Amino acid sequence: MATDTRERILDASRGLFARRGYAGTGIKQILAEADAAFASLYHFFPGGKDELAAEAIRTSGAMYQHLVEGVLDAAPDLPTGISDCFAAAAETLRATGYADACPIATVALEVASTDEALRQATADVFAGWITALTERIVSAGVDQAAAAELAISAIALLEGAFVLSRALHSTEPMTAAGTAATQAAHAALTTAPAAVP
Amino acid sequence: MATDTRERILDASRGLFARRGYAGTGIKQILAEADAAFASLYHFFPGGKDELAAEAIRTSGAMYQHLVEGVLDAAPDLPTGISDCFAAAAETLRATGYADACPIATVALEVASTDEALRQATADVFAGWITALTERIVSAGVDQAAAAELAISAIALLEGAFVLSRALHSTEPMTAAGTAATQAAHAALTTAPAAVP
Repeated sequence: MATDTRERILDASRGLFARRGYAGTGIKQILAEADAAFASLYHFFPGGKDELAAEAIRTSGAMYQHLVEGVLDAAPDLPTGISDCFAAAAETLRATGYADACPIATVALEVASTDEALRQATADVFAGWITALTERIVSAGVDQAAAAELAISAIALLEGAFVLSRALHSTEPMTAAGTAATQAAHAALTTAPAAVP
Repeated sequence: MATDTRERILDASRGLFARRGYAGTGIKQILAEADAAFASLYHFFPGGKDELAAEAIRTSGAMYQHLVEGVLDAAPDLPTGISDCFAAAAETLRATGYADACPIATVALEVASTDEALRQATADVFAGWITALTERIVSAGVDQAAAAELAISAIALLEGAFVLSRALHSTEPMTAAGTAATQAAHAALTTAPAAVP
């Protein structure tokens, strides 16, 4: 039950921070959505909104990575997997009225110049994503430097397309970004010396 | 003098919204930075913070477009121009401690699901950028559909790299995104039937 309350608070925070940002989300709103008492917040997160936000960022990042890796694992090859990720992102945007996108980008832009602890939390998430995708591309036979470049570009395309698609209320940016990322993956694999067996 | 005050308020707003976001920027902070009286705000912007934000978004968008077009105009060809834009963005990020990036992305993500008038302002800016860049790529000899896709991808790469570079306090994402955008521009021009003379 106690753990449930903590999870409900985190779950509400993840959704609100992703959709409304950090500054635009009030403690009262989180507690109302989580159906939790004020005392619970400081019981589970003695550091208050800042500690809660850091935990929401890290857990959001891990959940999203797990989701993306599931899509990549299910695909027959890397370019198809990347294409599927962008298609899934476009479908989620459309289905949620352009609300559900990157779980941490809004907060990342808000805190980059204002809150060093939260910036570090967003940096850790992005660095983790880049490392995991780079390793996957290396496993497909691309050398380390080219793999890192492709991983960063693919994640930048996804993040930038989230910004454009949410603002424009259109899946066109996500679709165009998906095509670009898939083409870049094809090009990297084609110029790779040999796929690891 | 009156116009100066209006411009000072707008200028302070553009900087604060870009770095701290919309919800994270208070009216008092804007007025203090603009050295303006509370009455001035409602004199020049009767709709208050919302009207000010819409005007800040539109003028920021126009200024940034002007800046990018200057870089593109100065380059000998389109791929070089795109490469120069990303290099300039990386240098600005480095020089400002990763604070100065896209002037409207932070607000765009905050308001996409919460404030329809401001969302529309960010959508108008992004749509204007996409149209202008698409026309420029068409002038370089690429067909309309491929040009639109390249324009959207290049802007998505820039926006996504701003998110990653600001969070990571590193120019590496902007550099990798610049390489990807430049390669995509080269590929689009190579497969284009013929450059318009």
